Formats: sequence, C-alpha cells, structure tokens
Amino acid sequence: MSNSDETTDLQLKFDSNGLITAIAQDFETKEILMLAFMNEQSFKKSLETGEAHYWSRSRSELWHKGATSGSTQIIREIRIDCDQDAVILLIDQQGDGACHTGRSNCFYRQINKDGTLSFIEK
Amino acid sequence: MSNSDETTDLQLKFDSNGLITAIAQDFETKEILMLAFMNEQSFKKSLETGEAHYWSRSRSELWHKGATSGSTQIIREIRIDCDQDAVILLIDQQGDGACHTGRSNCFYRQINKDGTLSFIEK
Repeated sequence: MSNSDETTDLQLKFDSNGLITAIAQDFETKEILMLAFMNEQSFKKSLETGEAHYWSRSRSELWHKGATSGSTQIIREIRIDCDQDAVILLIDQQGDGACHTGRSNCFYRQINKDGTLSFIEK
Repeated sequence: MSNSDETTDLQLKFDSNGLITAIAQDFETKEILMLAFMNEQSFKKSLETGEAHYWSRSRSELWHKGATSGSTQIIREIRIDCDQDAVILLIDQQGDGACHTGRSNCFYRQINKDGTLSFIEK
C-alpha cells in the first residue's frame, strides 16, 4: 500500500491535465447525480464556500454549478478515495436538477445487453 | 442539447486516452464502491460476461476485477450519462470488498473543512 492510502494528510493526485474526478451524490437518496472534474482552484472553492465548483473542460473555466440556473449543490460531506484522485460530493441539489437536460440526474438511461440504450422509468 | 443526450444509440465518447469513467455502485445499498476506467475492450467484456472489467492505467492492461482475489463484481445494471463518457455499474460485490486496501469501498475517508482527512467510522 502506498502512503496516500492510510494518511490523514490531503495529497490530491491531479492527472496530467491538473484534474481529479468528482462524483456528485445525493446526500439523502444516495442517487448518483453527475460526474465532473475539479482542478485545484475549484476544489478549494468548493471546500471554502460549501457549494460545488467544478472545472469545465469544454469552456476551460471555473464552473460554479448552478450560479446562473439556480441549480446549486450544497455540500454536506466530501469523501476521498484510496489513491486520492477522486472525490464524492454528498450534496443537497437545489433548483431543477443536476443535469443540463433538465433531468434530476445525468444517468437516466441504461445500457441493454444488446448494446442499445433504454430510458429509465421513474 | 447534443444528440448523445436523447438517443437510444450507444455512442461512447472515449477521451484522448481511449477511456471512459466507470463508477461501481452497490446495487442494494447504493454505496459508491470505487471509480475506475474502461477502454472499448473492457466495456465490451463487461457487457458480454456480466462481470466488471476495467482498464488498468498503471499496468496498461485489461483488468478483470477480482480475477485473482475473488472480489469479482457481478453487474446487475449499467447506466450511462448524458454525454456518454461515464457509466455506473450497479453491482453485487463478491469476496472481501472493492478496495485494494481490503476495505469494502475506496471512499473510507472524509475531507474536513480544514483540509485534513478523517477515517469514516462504520
């Protein structure tokens, strides 16, 4: 085991693009809402403000989730994995939902055995 | 919205390294167990066999999770996100657990407000 597994020191392991992976999970229902990325700046902003900030890879900019739409994510807890390159944000989702399609979460389709997709009934 | 959002066609969006992100989530408890990566080969193997196959970035090889340890992951359902670059594997974890540290899952520490880590009590 490497040291990052058992330490209580934060040793974020950013990839070659300076990013870690962030999973937003609903604090109450445990539903996975979305997956996004954080650079050091967005991680610090999230920790300081208590609201999810990501790094937008498409726009190459700090992304305060919901800043314009109102669909902010209030952070209740942050967890980190063994090798410190991924975090879970346990959140309370505000507004209409986490997904840009207007849905509550981004994982609204399942992959069938034959490789086609089906929309998941609520 | 782009077409990948609303289609029932599988259009996996691999990154520049040929990978998508995969989250393994316990089918029953909804606990997030681990985060890993898949290339096209490991995705196909997972779909065909019903057991989680990833791409090991450290070893640069196909990784049949638990093949040697017995900690295989039986896939109950696969979900895909809006832009088709991330999947959730809803699984039944076999053996001792998902994490290489011997723990049931990789996210066994939380990040405190002051930036230190604490081990989560079970």
